Parts: sequence; C-alpha cells; structure tokens
Amino acid sequence: MSQSFDIAVIGATGTVGETLVQILEERDFPVGNLHLLASSESAGHSVPFRGKNVRVREVDEFDFSKVQLVFFAAGPAVTLSFASRATAAGCSLIDLSGALPADQAPQVVPEANAQVLAGLKKPFQVSSPSPSATTLAVVLAPLLGLLDLQRVNVTASLAVSAQGREAVTELARQTAELLNVRPLEPSFFDRQMAFNLLAQVGKPDENGHTLLEKRLVRELRQVMALPSLKISVTCIQAPVFFGDSFNVTLQSASAVDLVKVNAALEDAPGIELVEAGDYPTPVGDAVGQDVVYVGRVRAGIDDPSELNVWLTSDNVRKGAALNAVQVAELLIKDLL
Amino acid sequence: MSQSFDIAVIGATGTVGETLVQILEERDFPVGNLHLLASSESAGHSVPFRGKNVRVREVDEFDFSKVQLVFFAAGPAVTLSFASRATAAGCSLIDLSGALPADQAPQVVPEANAQVLAGLKKPFQVSSPSPSATTLAVVLAPLLGLLDLQRVNVTASLAVSAQGREAVTELARQTAELLNVRPLEPSFFDRQMAFNLLAQVGKPDENGHTLLEKRLVRELRQVMALPSLKISVTCIQAPVFFGDSFNVTLQSASAVDLVKVNAALEDAPGIELVEAGDYPTPVGDAVGQDVVYVGRVRAGIDDPSELNVWLTSDNVRKGAALNAVQVAELLIKDLL
Ligand SMILES: NC(=O)c1ccc[n+]([C@@H]2O[C@H](COP(=O)([O-])OP(=O)(O)OC[C@H]3O[C@@H](n4cnc5c(N)ncnc54)[C@H](OP(=O)(O)O)[C@@H]3O)[C@@H](O)[C@H]2O)c1
Ligand SMILES: NC(=O)c1ccc[n+]([C@@H]2O[C@H](COP(=O)([O-])OP(=O)(O)OC[C@H]3O[C@@H](n4cnc5c(N)ncnc54)[C@H](OP(=O)(O)O)[C@@H]3O)[C@@H](O)[C@H]2O)c1
Repeated sequence: MSQSFDIAVIGATGTVGETLVQILEERDFPVGNLHLLASSESAGHSVPFRGKNVRVREVDEFDFSKVQLVFFAAGPAVTLSFASRATAAGCSLIDLSGALPADQAPQVVPEANAQVLAGLKKPFQVSSPSPSATTLAVVLAPLLGLLDLQRVNVTASLAVSAQGREAVTELARQTAELLNVRPLEPSFFDRQMAFNLLAQVGKPDENGHTLLEKRLVRELRQVMALPSLKISVTCIQAPVFFGDSFNVTLQSASAVDLVKVNAALEDAPGIELVEAGDYPTPVGDAVGQDVVYVGRVRAGIDDPSELNVWLTSDNVRKGAALNAVQVAELLIKDLL
Repeated sequence: MSQSFDIAVIGATGTVGETLVQILEERDFPVGNLHLLASSESAGHSVPFRGKNVRVREVDEFDFSKVQLVFFAAGPAVTLSFASRATAAGCSLIDLSGALPADQAPQVVPEANAQVLAGLKKPFQVSSPSPSATTLAVVLAPLLGLLDLQRVNVTASLAVSAQGREAVTELARQTAELLNVRPLEPSFFDRQMAFNLLAQVGKPDENGHTLLEKRLVRELRQVMALPSLKISVTCIQAPVFFGDSFNVTLQSASAVDLVKVNAALEDAPGIELVEAGDYPTPVGDAVGQDVVYVGRVRAGIDDPSELNVWLTSDNVRKGAALNAVQVAELLIKDLL
C-alpha cells in the first residue's frame, strides 16, 4: 500500500514534539506532507525530517484542512485553543497535553486498550495519557488476568525532562554550581534539585494531591477500564534528566503465581523483562528505548498475595511520543 | 549530678562514628575518658573532641575494662569479633551494625520503644536499627493508637552515604565526569549512579529481597512490637549524598482521622511536621538535623482508610549516630 497522510505536529520544537518527528521517520510512518508548528518564538526555525529541513510555522495561521491528522504536543492551552478548529476542518487529532475530557478524546495505550479506537467516529480524537499512566498501563495489561487486583500502590520518581527543556537546563546548572562550590540560587524549581528529591511535583489541592497524581489515577482507571480500582500514588521529582521510574505494589485477593507473571511479562508487547536478580535503570536501559523495562518481580516479603515490580521507561519517548505514534499507526487504516 | 562515664567508639574515623563523637560533644554527654578506635589503617590519626585532638587507636589492642560503654560503628564483622570481649569485661554496648540478634541486643528507638531498656540486664546490649527502621519507627509510634493498621508500604530512597565514604566520593566523581562530557567508568556502584536511580541496594536473595529490605521489616516489627505487621518495602539508591527519604502508605481498617494524625505528629518527639501544601527535602531540611521531617500528610485519593506520608531524615545523624546517643542517654542512669 502506498497511501500516505498529511500530518501536522504542534509543539514540534519541544522535547516531545522533536522526538515525535524523529519517531515518525524511524518507523517509516506513511507521511505525505509534514507541517511543523509552534509559537511565533520559533517560527522560521527548522527541524530535520527524512534528510530535509522542514520549516517550523506559527500554529495560529495554520489551515487544518491541509492535513488528515494532527499531534498536539504544545501544552493544554494550545490544545484547548485549536482542537475544535482542527476537528471542524475534518482533521483527526492525537493530544498529548491531557487537556481533553475522556468522553471527547479517550486515553489510549495500544498495548492495553487499542479496542477503544474501533468505537470512535471520524474525525478521530484520542488522548495519549501521561507518561506515568502509559507506562503503568503497558505493564498492568498483561497482568490483569492473573491477579484478583484489589489495590495498586505507586511511587513514581519522575525525570526533570517531564517538565520540559527549562527543567533539564536547570538541573545541569545547579549540579555544576554545587560541584564548583558556588552558592546556589535555585530557579525554575523552588529549591535545590541537584542531589536532592522533591516530594511534590506541582501544587497540591486542599486534600494534598497534585494534578499529576490525580491525572495518573484517572487515566489509569480509564485505560484499564477499572473505574473503581484503588490506586495510591505519589509523584516525586528525582535529579534524573530522562527516564521515569516506578515502584509498584499490586495487591491481589489471592496468592500470586510468579511463574505465570514472569511468563506474561516476557510475552507481552512493549515490555523488556530483565533477568531475576538484576534490575533496570532509567539511564543505561530505558532512555532511548521503545519498551518499558521491568525488573525486581517478586512477592511480598511474607505476603504471597502481593506483587512488587520496578518499572522504568523513557518518559518522552515510550511515555509520550512513541505512544502517540503507535495510536496513529492504528488509526490510519481508517483515516481517509 | 557530676557523674561521668568512660566511653569507647569503634569506627570513630567513619561516617557514623565521626558524627557520633560530634553528637556526644554537642549534647554534653557526661563523657569521662573517650577512647576512639578504628582499624590499623587510621590508628594514629586524631579526631577533635571538646577542643582537643583525641588519638585514634587500634581496636585489637583495646582493653574494654577501661570503659563502661562502647559504641560499635565499624561494620558487622567488627561487632561480631569484639562484642563478647566487651561484655566479658563488664562493658555495656550499643551496636549500629545490625550484627547482633534481637534476643541478645534488642533494637531500640527511644521515641518508639524506650520501655524495652528497663528489662535489660547489665552489661547492657542494645542495637540501634538501620536508619530506615529508625526513621519509620519515630513516625509510626505516635500514629499506632490512631490507626487500625493493616499494612505498611514503603519506598525508601536512600542516600549514597548509607554505603559509607567511598560511595559519596564516587557519586561526586561520576557527576563531574558526566558534566565534563568525559566517558564514565563506574566504580563502587556497578553502573552509572549520577543522574540515575538504582532499584536495588545489595544483592537480592532467591525471592528477590535484599538484606537491607529484610532487615528493615524485621527491625520495624520488633521495635513496634507488631511481629506480624504486613510491610512491603523497596529500598532504592538515589543520587543524593546525605538524607534518606521515604514514601509511606499506611492502610488502616477504617477511615483515618487526619486532624488527629496531624495533631499527634505535631506533638510527637523527634518529628518536625512541615505545613500542609509544603514538603520536606533531604537537602535543605533533614540533613544536619535531629528530627525526622514529615510532610504530604494525606488520605488516599478516594480511600479514606489510607494514610500517606513523606518522611526524610539525616541517615547518618538521626538515623544512626543520634539514635545511638539517645539510647545511651537513657542507659547511663543505670550504667554504674
Ligand atoms: N516532557 C514530557 O515528558 C512529556 C510527556 C508527555 C506529555 N507531555 C506534554 O507534551 C506537551 C509538550 O511538552 P514538552 O515537554 O515537549 O514541552 P517543551 O519542551 O517546553 O516544548 C513545548 C512546545 O510547545 C510549543 N509551544 C508553547 N507554547 C505555544 C503556543 N502558544 N503556540 C504554539 N506552540 C507553543 C513550543 O514551541 P516554541 O519553541 O515556539 O516555544 C514547543 O515546541 C505538554 O502538554 C506536556 O504536558 C510532556
Ligand atoms: N552510613 C550510614 O548511613 C549508616 C547508618 C547506620 C548504620 N551504619 C553502620 O555503621 C557502620 C559504619 O558505617 P559507616 O557508614 O560509618 O562506614 P565508613 O564511613 O566506611 O567507616 C567505617 C569505620 O569502621 C572502621 N573499620 C573498618 N574496618 C575495621 C576493622 N577491621 N577494625 C576496626 N575498625 C574498622 C573504619 O576505620 P578505618 O578508618 O581504620 O578504616 C571506619 O572508622 C556499619 O556497620 C554501617 O552499616 C551506617
């Protein structure tokens, strides 16, 4: 089949957008014309695609009827401003900002709930969940049939790149200042991020939960189709540039069969299971890879109905850009 | 009262031992003669105490009958070699290495189970638990009466100083190499530690649990006098020099009263509760302090019977040296 699709990427100069363009090329996505969009700030810059430099344009002036599919990777405000213009022009969209409600654009992780796509009407509107929900869904999906799942407990140690380019620069700057024994004036983060752990990412609500934590719970429940699953989650900021890590405890109602769990993880798409005794790390394993790394698969110290796993994934790639492209690969057969 | 006690510190040149000597001075512990001991490697060095330099001697040649109390802070092998020599000479001991069984030297955290000391016979033998168990015990103690506790879930992000001086030097070295874009050859840690998270500290057993994790469970159960408490624990190594952090989920059988929980934490000894909306960090809050910092006190996102807290403490100080000195302060009234 030589059919191709005209595509727009909004936020093409950002951490996620740039990776997304790269993945479209790597995976030989059937791109016809590629339109790269951003704010006025970087309009005129260009981004390489298939050996050519593609000029970045301002999203405000874009005519959405020129494309069949648009990726929104420029923050919730941009999605909220332009999503309806895109769909009004008949253009399908995949949003990475989390701005759209689930009944308008369901959260989809192909390894977990690809079937949801079959129920959508054109122009399609799909959300790619937060990297945390995406990573957890990839790993929970093959396990659900093996557990009588009562409760999920997650400690998510997030990379600073989850907060965009500025956060990455600031961690590097702070680290250099400290190593050179210069006084530290934190910017971007409200305190020292280098060699430290921040227990909260974003402002909490009056009950102490952050937006990111509530989003993870909401999205994971929707993707797993378990609307009342008990999920306890804490998102912390680690002094790591790229790669999110997750300590996950799954509580089952009965003893967990570790042999079956290992076999299911071994066979599942989107997962690399490291061998027993070893463990995966963000740097060295997950970063730059297309899979979620899983290790430390074990029962509770003396609770056989508890399953512990450690996950790590590239937040920008597997957690965001690649998941969106995987969704697009499933959508295109019905796009025209 | 002007009574004073002759004291020995084994491992006085180490991370914990040096802090311990400093704390004896800061708290005006009634020290008569102070004997600082280490291996032949640092015998002859000296360590400051009350404005004088105290010469470090080799432990092998030490006559334990010269002191009434000895702190063991030089690793399990040293404790196992010399503990019986100390007690045979009538000398009481406080061990920080975790080498002694609980029936010989019970684990004591003064804020949680000081009453255990009353049951001991002279010469006293007491263990100061691992920093993780100590920190958790300080915070669980005032909460136990308020919860019908079913289960504790802990993700412990440990500072590299938990592994002694070499680990601290190696994190600094790796970080400098990476910032200078030089190729990294990890030593001490088996892989890159800088800007990374290691999901396992030490080799796991055939069930996947590390010694540190099993020790935490065993010690916490003993200190809390809850021998069958369900505890799920994962100890990870964070790229942080000093200060351990803990994400803790406590599962109660009924709804948790957050007002009472906050009041109990506010009143409890050894705890600094940070205000709602804020959170404590190892660097900036806990390091160098004599208390466990507690923050992010909240119920589950929609499970009122779940209590989440974030803890951070100075692993070397509050987690080890200070706890041992606090035990000593309780013991000395009966030491002679
Ligand atoms: N980083 C992650 O791990 C991650 C993962 C999943 C989802 N996301 C989501 O993806 C989105 C982008 O995140 P990011 O990390 O890639 O951020 P980023 O590195 O800061 O990049 C932001 C991108 O959005 C563009 N942009 C900003 N304001 C705009 C406007 N008013 N009109 C048009 N374009 C605008 C920027 O263009 P200019 O160059 O013109 O400023 C840039 O291309 C966010 O919604 C984020 O929540 C991020
Ligand atoms: N670091 C922590 O956060 C922490 C917390 C709680 C408990 N602990 C425990 O406390 C102990 C010491 O830990 P650390 O972190 O302070 O280690 P460290 O910084 O490596 O210091 C080790 C100390 O032990 C001495 N030592 C080593 N081998 C010896 C021997 N054969 N005979 C006599 N002395 C010997 C060393 O003396 P030389 O200078 O002569 O080598 C040094 O004083 C360990 O059992 C550790 O598990 C550590």
